[in-house]
Amino acid sequence: MDRRSFIKRAGVAGVGATAATLASPALAQGNITWRMVTTWPKNFPGLGVGAQRLGDRITAASGGRLTVQVYSAGELVPPLQSLDAVIDGTAEMSHGAAYYWQNKSPALSFFTGVPYGMTTPELTAWMRYLGGQEIWDEVYDQFGVQGFLSGNTGTQAGGWFKNEINSVEDLKGVRFRTPGLGGRVWEKLGATVTNMAAGEIFQALQSGTLDAAEFVGPYNDLALGFHQVAKNYYMPSFVESGLATELVVDKAKYQALPEDLQAIVKDICQAEYDQVAADFYANDPRALRTLVNDHGVQVRNFPDDVMAAGAVASQEVIDELRDSSDPLVQKVTESFLEGLSLVRERTEKIDLPYQAARQKHLK
Amino acid sequence: MDRRSFIKRAGVAGVGATAATLASPALAQGNITWRMVTTWPKNFPGLGVGAQRLGDRITAASGGRLTVQVYSAGELVPPLQSLDAVIDGTAEMSHGAAYYWQNKSPALSFFTGVPYGMTTPELTAWMRYLGGQEIWDEVYDQFGVQGFLSGNTGTQAGGWFKNEINSVEDLKGVRFRTPGLGGRVWEKLGATVTNMAAGEIFQALQSGTLDAAEFVGPYNDLALGFHQVAKNYYMPSFVESGLATELVVDKAKYQALPEDLQAIVKDICQAEYDQVAADFYANDPRALRTLVNDHGVQVRNFPDDVMAAGAVASQEVIDELRDSSDPLVQKVTESFLEGLSLVRERTEKIDLPYQAARQKHLK
Repeated sequence: MDRRSFIKRAGVAGVGATAATLASPALAQGNITWRMVTTWPKNFPGLGVGAQRLGDRITAASGGRLTVQVYSAGELVPPLQSLDAVIDGTAEMSHGAAYYWQNKSPALSFFTGVPYGMTTPELTAWMRYLGGQEIWDEVYDQFGVQGFLSGNTGTQAGGWFKNEINSVEDLKGVRFRTPGLGGRVWEKLGATVTNMAAGEIFQALQSGTLDAAEFVGPYNDLALGFHQVAKNYYMPSFVESGLATELVVDKAKYQALPEDLQAIVKDICQAEYDQVAADFYANDPRALRTLVNDHGVQVRNFPDDVMAAGAVASQEVIDELRDSSDPLVQKVTESFLEGLSLVRERTEKIDLPYQAARQKHLK
Repeated sequence: MDRRSFIKRAGVAGVGATAATLASPALAQGNITWRMVTTWPKNFPGLGVGAQRLGDRITAASGGRLTVQVYSAGELVPPLQSLDAVIDGTAEMSHGAAYYWQNKSPALSFFTGVPYGMTTPELTAWMRYLGGQEIWDEVYDQFGVQGFLSGNTGTQAGGWFKNEINSVEDLKGVRFRTPGLGGRVWEKLGATVTNMAAGEIFQALQSGTLDAAEFVGPYNDLALGFHQVAKNYYMPSFVESGLATELVVDKAKYQALPEDLQAIVKDICQAEYDQVAADFYANDPRALRTLVNDHGVQVRNFPDDVMAAGAVASQEVIDELRDSSDPLVQKVTESFLEGLSLVRERTEKIDLPYQAARQKHLK
């Protein structure tokens, strides 16, 4: 975009700089400041830290021409109003997870992660090469925003259970904290599902209001202290097999940025996608060692009949989305299922046999 | 870095712009052009395409202030002289793989991938959070260059075999094309190992000079036509479980860049690491479908005794590196093994059980 059209569009979109300052090419004078609201508490391991780092990296790579001010959950708006804050202009950017906005479109779940869904590399492949980003753009165009993936937790832990689970029968009536589509799967398995904020889980487990809870994985869970009140840590989560975070930007303001700044925002989101995944991949096993060695936690696998019943229930939940009355929700579901059916062939024919052989044979 | 010290250092490092042009802050006047030599043929799927895209993205995100001219293998220097071209100043950047430079330090293998080594997310975790990048910097500081990861093929295919392999006995005397440390592992398993350039493999298989060959994976292998002369495609490669590419930059020239351009180079390498991995993850299974459905290729797994013997042989090869007379090679080996022992716990306790259950239960 040339400077003249940038100035013209910037004026319309209100990017926070006047045409007079933009007319001067000097770096220090054309700075734009954007507000990033987030759904994460300040310094929240992996995700809150990642949102702050994303903002800092955009500021640094742009030499301050696009300076990002990051607000943790509640500082500027309540966490679950972050997307609305971008839509109504309170902020220019929101860092969160697309599945928080299922009330706007159920299709948004797919861009975070759905039950028995994609792993991190599978989701990345779908989003970048198999049409995922394009169809996400269609969904968010309805709200005038642009989404970029900005991180991934990897496959999560299954959850903390006070009692052992030896068969799907043992799930009947278990009061389990787990949100979203995953919660619907667990309901189908017989659990009594509730959702509550992160800060309330520990107390509910301790008081006996909950029998079990899942949150993210060892890195986040250790910090919340669940191991003090439940000793059975079940693996893996089959309802959150890779949870992506997003940066959402006001689309008109984004398109009004000079092309180099547009590239910087997009590129650094992609760099951060890798950085956040690496953070979890390094710090989850560190935390898991601490939980096992210092706190006597028992790491267990869900029994096979739970994993099997979970697959059936997950397919029912996805089928409901495919049968949506909204054609775009149908279209996203079809694209996702087609992508999954392709990419899992690589996982199952190449990656999985290697990992299984290494587990068995490498001392 | 402030402008004055940048100008001073740029003059010393010869970044291709005079102090006079740099003294003006106007964007168009301070442009620097850097040459990137690569080890890949032009338009080589995944890797050559990735090198070009990396250069283009740096140019775009910097608004042309750092313009990258990409040279495919042989255009400016022969592919295996790419690192030397950076060291001697013929080019400012080299795109390749660190294990090509084992003759400079055997430690460099670890930053690409070693037999029975790390998967893509494991390598990323080691490099970014468990000391890998820092120790790589120590190795490359000896040559005055700075390395950044710039892509990853993921776990590769095991190779094309004319005859079926039913036990480790069947490997005796098999004339197999596979380079590097992986080749040493296959020698220990009884194969007669040779290396040859990509363009020579097909002819050698056809003429009978080779009984078997491995190259990368379905995406690259399909393009080279191996399926026309060998029908058994064995999975997985246990000697290339995740092969990272690198961008190497002259360190003094890199440090002489303004801080925002330094950030752009580093950040876009990280973005490209994700992009290349996604490219392989999406296009490997597409190519695999073509190989199976259109060309009658038989996809097979190596028998368990081959996977077991491969693990023993791989450990011997790594032990030789740990016993190196070079203390830095010892130190890198120890860091790698410590990192692997940590990160594989996440893979084996969380990721692998999920992927195995999905393979078994999700229709």
